[in-house]
Amino acid sequence: MPEHTTTSRLWLSGLCFLLQILTILLFAVFVRYSPESSPGLCSQQLNCSWRNQDSGFQHPRFRDVHLQALLGFGLLVAFLGRYGPGSVATSILVVAFAIQWAILIQGFLYFFLNGKIYVGAQSVVSADFCTAAILISTGAVLSRVNPIQMLLLTLLGVTFFTLNEYILLSLMGVSDSGGSLTVHTFGAYFGLMVSRILHQPHMDKRKEQQDMGHQPDVFAVVGTIYLWIFWPSFTSATTVRDSAEPWAVLNTYFSLAASTLATFVLLPVLHEEGTLRMVQIQDATLAGAAVMGMAGEMLVTPFGALIAGFLAGLIPLLGFRFLTPILRSRLKIQDTCGVHNVHGLPGILGALLGTLLTALATADAYGGRLELVLPLVAQGSRTATDQALCQLAALPVTLLLAALGGFLTGAVLKAKGLRSPPDTLYLENTVLWEVAEEGCDHGVSRKELGTSTLV
Amino acid sequence: MPEHTTTSRLWLSGLCFLLQILTILLFAVFVRYSPESSPGLCSQQLNCSWRNQDSGFQHPRFRDVHLQALLGFGLLVAFLGRYGPGSVATSILVVAFAIQWAILIQGFLYFFLNGKIYVGAQSVVSADFCTAAILISTGAVLSRVNPIQMLLLTLLGVTFFTLNEYILLSLMGVSDSGGSLTVHTFGAYFGLMVSRILHQPHMDKRKEQQDMGHQPDVFAVVGTIYLWIFWPSFTSATTVRDSAEPWAVLNTYFSLAASTLATFVLLPVLHEEGTLRMVQIQDATLAGAAVMGMAGEMLVTPFGALIAGFLAGLIPLLGFRFLTPILRSRLKIQDTCGVHNVHGLPGILGALLGTLLTALATADAYGGRLELVLPLVAQGSRTATDQALCQLAALPVTLLLAALGGFLTGAVLKAKGLRSPPDTLYLENTVLWEVAEEGCDHGVSRKELGTSTLV
Amino acid sequence: MPEHTTTSRLWLSGLCFLLQILTILLFAVFVRYSPESSPGLCSQQLNCSWRNQDSGFQHPRFRDVHLQALLGFGLLVAFLGRYGPGSVATSILVVAFAIQWAILIQGFLYFFLNGKIYVGAQSVVSADFCTAAILISTGAVLSRVNPIQMLLLTLLGVTFFTLNEYILLSLMGVSDSGGSLTVHTFGAYFGLMVSRILHQPHMDKRKEQQDMGHQPDVFAVVGTIYLWIFWPSFTSATTVRDSAEPWAVLNTYFSLAASTLATFVLLPVLHEEGTLRMVQIQDATLAGAAVMGMAGEMLVTPFGALIAGFLAGLIPLLGFRFLTPILRSRLKIQDTCGVHNVHGLPGILGALLGTLLTALATADAYGGRLELVLPLVAQGSRTATDQALCQLAALPVTLLLAALGGFLTGAVLKAKGLRSPPDTLYLENTVLWEVAEEGCDHGVSRKELGTSTLV
Repeated sequence: MPEHTTTSRLWLSGLCFLLQILTILLFAVFVRYSPESSPGLCSQQLNCSWRNQDSGFQHPRFRDVHLQALLGFGLLVAFLGRYGPGSVATSILVVAFAIQWAILIQGFLYFFLNGKIYVGAQSVVSADFCTAAILISTGAVLSRVNPIQMLLLTLLGVTFFTLNEYILLSLMGVSDSGGSLTVHTFGAYFGLMVSRILHQPHMDKRKEQQDMGHQPDVFAVVGTIYLWIFWPSFTSATTVRDSAEPWAVLNTYFSLAASTLATFVLLPVLHEEGTLRMVQIQDATLAGAAVMGMAGEMLVTPFGALIAGFLAGLIPLLGFRFLTPILRSRLKIQDTCGVHNVHGLPGILGALLGTLLTALATADAYGGRLELVLPLVAQGSRTATDQALCQLAALPVTLLLAALGGFLTGAVLKAKGLRSPPDTLYLENTVLWEVAEEGCDHGVSRKELGTSTLV
Repeated sequence: MPEHTTTSRLWLSGLCFLLQILTILLFAVFVRYSPESSPGLCSQQLNCSWRNQDSGFQHPRFRDVHLQALLGFGLLVAFLGRYGPGSVATSILVVAFAIQWAILIQGFLYFFLNGKIYVGAQSVVSADFCTAAILISTGAVLSRVNPIQMLLLTLLGVTFFTLNEYILLSLMGVSDSGGSLTVHTFGAYFGLMVSRILHQPHMDKRKEQQDMGHQPDVFAVVGTIYLWIFWPSFTSATTVRDSAEPWAVLNTYFSLAASTLATFVLLPVLHEEGTLRMVQIQDATLAGAAVMGMAGEMLVTPFGALIAGFLAGLIPLLGFRFLTPILRSRLKIQDTCGVHNVHGLPGILGALLGTLLTALATADAYGGRLELVLPLVAQGSRTATDQALCQLAALPVTLLLAALGGFLTGAVLKAKGLRSPPDTLYLENTVLWEVAEEGCDHGVSRKELGTSTLV
Repeated sequence: MPEHTTTSRLWLSGLCFLLQILTILLFAVFVRYSPESSPGLCSQQLNCSWRNQDSGFQHPRFRDVHLQALLGFGLLVAFLGRYGPGSVATSILVVAFAIQWAILIQGFLYFFLNGKIYVGAQSVVSADFCTAAILISTGAVLSRVNPIQMLLLTLLGVTFFTLNEYILLSLMGVSDSGGSLTVHTFGAYFGLMVSRILHQPHMDKRKEQQDMGHQPDVFAVVGTIYLWIFWPSFTSATTVRDSAEPWAVLNTYFSLAASTLATFVLLPVLHEEGTLRMVQIQDATLAGAAVMGMAGEMLVTPFGALIAGFLAGLIPLLGFRFLTPILRSRLKIQDTCGVHNVHGLPGILGALLGTLLTALATADAYGGRLELVLPLVAQGSRTATDQALCQLAALPVTLLLAALGGFLTGAVLKAKGLRSPPDTLYLENTVLWEVAEEGCDHGVSRKELGTSTLV
């Protein structure tokens, strides 16, 4: 057994080395910095071609590039916080590789010219979005896959994510600047499908009994606060303009406030004896932000954000209570961190809301902002109704690609060589990741909810 | 007893629901986003009227609206940190509701035109200031009121805060951009008055014996660091200009440094056997920031900030040692988190310092900055002495309104239906708030200080 | 013994008071705010003279002064995190005094005109850099010096740091905007030399047995995340320009990603039974950032940053395994937090990389950026080769000054009156700093690594 463990560990080391060398070689051959020129001026043909050809993907003037890149990582931080200290080491490995890989894959699709990928601050922000989706996916399978599988999940997940994003934003011209569909929905269902394929009946049962560790709420507190601080800006990272009031920021802010109150409304009704835990507030906050991904900059009245946030805040509690047990027992999908309740359903709700708002969009209500939010409608190449149909069609496309990608990825991860025998898997986690055994913050509450329903 | 608890919990749920529905309705009827136009340009009459009419309340050009809104929340974070993990869930409930309510109440006073409230980034920053004051107030009564009372305190507190702010800034033309008076002094004395009204002799005695929980210092560390990072910018959130050196930021930064050293100077003198705890450094940091609220942008030499910060840093230690026991035994005011020492007295010191600096203000020393800091003096409609008298008069006005508002609020909270019987109150806290029983960080040190003085 | 302790504590109080009074007096006599004028306009002779005379030290246009000052402190935060909760109180004392003192000392060298020091946001950013170096130095001696010695170390360290920085940047015209040499290398070797001088054989042996406390990884997690968020911007704090893509930011970001992967590559190879701890990832992150200090803005292709980051990420693990035991047993240098591995060696590697890149610099590759990165080369007063020789010569100069300064400082700290007897030193720590006994995060891993090598 120890021999097996050592082999596993050397495998991980080798894979990391291989992937890093591969990335360095690909960077050396393909990746260059954008040539020196004012990004807003666009005087050189080289620098601007991809900015204009990609009509669905807004490129702001990057006045505050630093801030935006930082905020991108702020989002990741929130996820780290959400998934508990046990998963942080794995998460950082995923982040470190996903960023490099996303810059390459997205570069080939978006920033490729004359045989080179020209990267800039925009690339890093895009890569951050992609990394966020991968982190959501890992939340579904956390504590049941080993680090080697995690790396392969990242490798394939980034590829599928970029494919989906390219189809939605560039080919279909969908507006989804905050990622309700591309980040939240795709990330959640991709992860859930991987989890379904990796389902191991015996494994899961034993695991459950060890899941009772009582996490301190410190990480949930810090994560919630990060979300409140950083997410409103992140939602609008790609659509900031100097001269306009930041609607996306304010809408997200209002949504967060309403979703928090929703938790306090629903919890006492739902659980007569339950106690409120910080992680439940954090779930509501995440859901309140996910729902504003697409609709954030389309809402022209603040009370809409309050209503949407309130509804989104109800989803996680209801989902953990009624949906997660069904998913587990009927569909055999285990969802370690409940990404279905926190990202999947709120993301779909956000997409539907965005579709509705697109259908109602008029030049009067948006003014000069229409060019920014729905450029194809502003340019007259589409009616608002056509655009709404496109937005609506993007939902099944995303679900399909997430399921397909998850299926293929799960199949790869299940390959004999990669899958550690059930007996050593948990041990390995203990050996490699000193703090990994706690799994997700929901360890306790999920268990307890599950029991109260099933018994 | 459990039945009573369940009823209480459903009451909370119902109250949250009611307040959220009320807010949504009021938002739907009254609140709109500012129309699309460059905020700096002010081409439309609609958008600008309130900007000019309100001479005491500076409206910056919102170059970095995002950042400022974020920093606003950074301030809140620091408070959350300060008041310990036990109170975070309650604090976030307060924040979530206070922001919505403050946008409404402040909107009616400041941003109301043609029957609509036009909100923008400025509204959120103002609401953040208000929420900060409410969080200070809750610090005085933490662990002795239930969440329902907390919500009502927020409801009434926001209203009185806005009333006081409106009288000071708009009617009296007082300059208090960092909130020495409006945030710190008002928040502290409002909370103390509520605490006085709610005084329950038997309750308090029993409570004291359970107050010995030993908080980990993690939250104090994180909170202190947040303060150092975010507060200097927050102090100047409403007065930033592109072209000027940021005096308010630098003064606050110097004040923080000096107040920290003050703790190290006084602690060994005061407590021969005492140990230094991070929360004491955090208290000094808060005091050092509170004292710069009004004076931050008026100080034309950095050494003034050092002296003020040093003096402010001495206040919390002296206050906890000599003043808190007197407050408790003589005036029957229990001050859970010591807001009197950390916010009340430093706020008053800051207001007096600001008054002195206003009296000494000359066009020579301030240059073009005078227009920004003391617009009425710059425009010639007041002499510096008149302005100083106004600033001075604002202090008793604030104290009076805080006491009056606190009295009324306390009377409401004391109503039969709201006040849980002493026996179930503590239990309820345990049931609803898993981590709420620790109370405030000062649990240990306050107890210990109190004993050493009283025995 | 208690009497001795009390005396010590009063000594600390007195020293803090003395230093604060001294600083206030010097500020009162010398320090003024820069006169009111647009920093970018430079219309007044007074305000601009020092901006042009100092060719090696770039003064940006301070568009985002606030942010930069904040980020400066963000860096400090990371160090606090890295060095564990036990040291936070001491670190904050060091920070509070170092900032004031650095503004004075650096002011006399950089911002002195007509008998006054004119401070502004630039001064605070410079002081933050200096404080970062001092915090690195304290990392080498943490838990073996008392707070009084810490203050004197700060007093002398700031002076030597500024001297070295002045020689490098102003006299030699070296480009080191991110501080590979001035911050990381100087800080590490200064601290190591102080540690060598303070070596006490008996003391150290006893200490070692108490070093086994098991730190929670919370601080390492938070610290790592802060680094990822704030360091990329900090590296470029002094070279930001609006119109250019932020190469230094992106290079640092890539370097962080690669250094993280390096940890996962090397750890399983090096330690067959070892577990991965968050602090090891944090070490790699710090090293990956240190290596980009000088080279960050010189790298014109992203893959260079990946390679440099990967190599830098290997250094801490190798250093702790092979170098630290030798340093301790042969050279009698105890390195509490391993600053040699985390800052010293990566800093040197960064300086060598920067030298290489300078030698290869051509106007073609850099374009308009050359003026910013290597102004003397751009102006034609030096060839790229000459500049590279200067950069190379800066390394021995820094090492020499660090060693000399460390020697003198160590000699002062060793003075009879300051050095507490070994028996009371530890006790004092317990009394004064409630949480101080844990020392550095590496308590466990260092011990364990040392044993496995020595046995």
